[in-house]
Amino acid sequence: MTIALSDVLLALENVVGANNLLTRPDDMLAYETSARGQPGRAAFVVRPESTEQVSQVMALAAAHGFHLIPQGANTGLVNGSTPDMSGTQGVLSLERMRRILSIDPVNRTAEVEAGVRLSQLNAALAEHGLFFPIDLGADPMIGGMVSTNTGGARFLRYGDVRRNTLGLQLVLPDHSGTIVSLGSDLRKDNSAPDLKHLFIGSCGLFGIVTRAILELHRKPRQAAAALLVPRDDGAILQLLETFEAEAGDVLSAFELMSREAMQAAFEHAASLRNPFAHGALPETAILVELSTSQGAQEGGTFLNDRLENILAAAWEAPGAPLLDAIVGSPEALWTLRHALSEGVKAAGDLVAFDLSFNRSNVTRFRAAMRTQLKQRHPEIRICDFGHIGDGGLHFNCVFPRSGAAALSQEEKARFRQETIQSVVAEFGGSFSAEHGIGRSNLEFYRTYTSPVVQLLASKVQSSIGAEQTHMS
Amino acid sequence: MTIALSDVLLALENVVGANNLLTRPDDMLAYETSARGQPGRAAFVVRPESTEQVSQVMALAAAHGFHLIPQGANTGLVNGSTPDMSGTQGVLSLERMRRILSIDPVNRTAEVEAGVRLSQLNAALAEHGLFFPIDLGADPMIGGMVSTNTGGARFLRYGDVRRNTLGLQLVLPDHSGTIVSLGSDLRKDNSAPDLKHLFIGSCGLFGIVTRAILELHRKPRQAAAALLVPRDDGAILQLLETFEAEAGDVLSAFELMSREAMQAAFEHAASLRNPFAHGALPETAILVELSTSQGAQEGGTFLNDRLENILAAAWEAPGAPLLDAIVGSPEALWTLRHALSEGVKAAGDLVAFDLSFNRSNVTRFRAAMRTQLKQRHPEIRICDFGHIGDGGLHFNCVFPRSGAAALSQEEKARFRQETIQSVVAEFGGSFSAEHGIGRSNLEFYRTYTSPVVQLLASKVQSSIGAEQTHMS
Repeated sequence: MTIALSDVLLALENVVGANNLLTRPDDMLAYETSARGQPGRAAFVVRPESTEQVSQVMALAAAHGFHLIPQGANTGLVNGSTPDMSGTQGVLSLERMRRILSIDPVNRTAEVEAGVRLSQLNAALAEHGLFFPIDLGADPMIGGMVSTNTGGARFLRYGDVRRNTLGLQLVLPDHSGTIVSLGSDLRKDNSAPDLKHLFIGSCGLFGIVTRAILELHRKPRQAAAALLVPRDDGAILQLLETFEAEAGDVLSAFELMSREAMQAAFEHAASLRNPFAHGALPETAILVELSTSQGAQEGGTFLNDRLENILAAAWEAPGAPLLDAIVGSPEALWTLRHALSEGVKAAGDLVAFDLSFNRSNVTRFRAAMRTQLKQRHPEIRICDFGHIGDGGLHFNCVFPRSGAAALSQEEKARFRQETIQSVVAEFGGSFSAEHGIGRSNLEFYRTYTSPVVQLLASKVQSSIGAEQTHMS
Repeated sequence: MTIALSDVLLALENVVGANNLLTRPDDMLAYETSARGQPGRAAFVVRPESTEQVSQVMALAAAHGFHLIPQGANTGLVNGSTPDMSGTQGVLSLERMRRILSIDPVNRTAEVEAGVRLSQLNAALAEHGLFFPIDLGADPMIGGMVSTNTGGARFLRYGDVRRNTLGLQLVLPDHSGTIVSLGSDLRKDNSAPDLKHLFIGSCGLFGIVTRAILELHRKPRQAAAALLVPRDDGAILQLLETFEAEAGDVLSAFELMSREAMQAAFEHAASLRNPFAHGALPETAILVELSTSQGAQEGGTFLNDRLENILAAAWEAPGAPLLDAIVGSPEALWTLRHALSEGVKAAGDLVAFDLSFNRSNVTRFRAAMRTQLKQRHPEIRICDFGHIGDGGLHFNCVFPRSGAAALSQEEKARFRQETIQSVVAEFGGSFSAEHGIGRSNLEFYRTYTSPVVQLLASKVQSSIGAEQTHMS
């Protein structure tokens, strides 16, 4: 059954009110454009304020066969929260659902609506000495974080959103817009198949997240950090092993920064302090951080002592894995780490990959690709960095914006395909470690996810919904 | 289509060989009887040695409409791995699939077949300084641990099997016995919906686990432990909060033991040492353990010092939460803790519950139930203990085996129903925290899992398989 768009709009307006159904191009622009600037065209933007309204909107979508793209803060990097250029998809924005429903300090849990921002939640948790430990540059909404299973820089300590999600409220894409609660505030519950995991990291494929019950952690009260300069690639893994053995309990970051990524950051941000002796950037630096919720009653330098002890042992270790180590304030070192993204973006025409590997393969991949790509593209800058402690790597390839070495759209697409082919086929890696699938990765999902898994996902999707939501 | 059992047996024998198809009652007895002694009757026991053989067996089951009960070490406590009394179900034993396929110390992962025992895996990991951190009394096989999402005593530090499973190989209950691999050795991978979670903790409902890729942890190299005697129930949560704040990084157990559980253990095991002054058992004791993979270069007493510091602070804390604290060797204190199960079993006619709650509600539940049950059953012994740090409680009710206060089967069933009604409806708890569903809990699954979730589970099950495996 098809009905006129005007009838659909009228029905939606009846659900959310005229103020919350946007159809004027100017009003829709921000909802149509992705965080990476890719344009889209929405048929409308609908902004429900409650789960019941989301349910009614979903039921209308299922009944009338229009596509809805759920959107939180629209900070995702894979074109997953914005419509395509067809002008036929509607955006379902969760931004009005921003209530923190409860905070339970004894149970260390909070229940929030999907439109609550990470920063908003953490501000509310601060007075309890708690935080939601997903650490990343953007400030997304919780619903989007669940849908993409956000990881971030403290993954090796606290895990991803999946690990910290105890319960979800969802709206299914069926003809009634069924509301379902999966999980609760319990940490341990095996009284039923744990179906909430279907909805984490699946980008809205199986339903829309409207609420989440999250496990919280105690906020660190002290931290110590250093920049390590490893002798070579093998030394990186050796240092990782040393830190995991000697300080695994308090290790909260092990972040690789390549010389070219740091260089790009310094070029872009003139005020950024260069911590290296004489400003000479090493080929690779590792930002290592220890942190703990323990107070300073054992002396404020407790973690610094522990860090110094490990560094002293690393100096003496077989093969001398450490060329240099600079202990600094965590804030200053993170300022450098967080400046990399913007620096890399400003450095030229960026082709960015969000990869992960078996930990042994990260360094193998980096070495092989550096050699190969620099031969084929002498002007390329490989500004990679990432969460190497958990096998993650933001592999950023920067080309000149103009001139003979600049890439056409077609060449860029081929470059992307060839690189991902190497990642998956040669190094057993993932082409989307922590950003999700989205429209940007759909081609690779179809190429590299095994047909039997794709079929299984389709079957599960069909069983749950009315097949009205898209993988996008 | 129905065919004679003899034809089915012939077909199965062609797959696994005559030695691995058991049909004689004596041979089948151990596979038919649950760990808690409930009897069952199997049509046959089939013991494939490879995923391909499991696939062929599953395809036969789907084609001929017979029910298969997957079984690992048969250590489960909810009657989930043994057949019912109908004599029509076959047992599919994974016990011959016991190869450790690979151990990767750099990536901290191992790939194992479903029939590998936890003890076998940990023995192989010891030389690498690694372990699989699920800690429990029994010695299950990995496939069963995945299927029931085992938790155990170190959950609050390392999480459950789900948290430590990166990849699975499965056989689906469809007409081809489809083999599917979900996940891999990557820690971070959001390139496809993460469907492996469907198969964790769902007791074989959606398919049979044949292999798992597990995340490993560094083995602790030092530990410190104490028995805490809290002033009252409120003090338990206060102490938990103190330990999480001051030693959350290294806290590896926070286990409640009730007086009656300890008493049962001492009655049963004459050689068990009573660590309390004059042997006087407190109403409640908490076994708290700190552990770390860090070596002893900072002094062998590093963790003991930390424990003593926290205990000193707890003595001084507002409300004086601590009545007594006995620092002891971790081995000795765990010997007491691990003796509880057998002691409780020997104490009388046991009705056991595997519960979990919001952490605030564990103590509320215990207090309310003690009052209520002791009034109604003056001879009851409430020998509860459990992983209270994560809201878990093994609530063991022991009745006299004979005499007027003994319960009939019918009274026991009603007692079970009424208790679980309280758990779920009054205290928002789970009737199966870490043992899974199984036949023992099926009635409660049907009663307390919301109809919409049950429907969703059925729909997903239908979409995946041929609906030949049972929730059992």
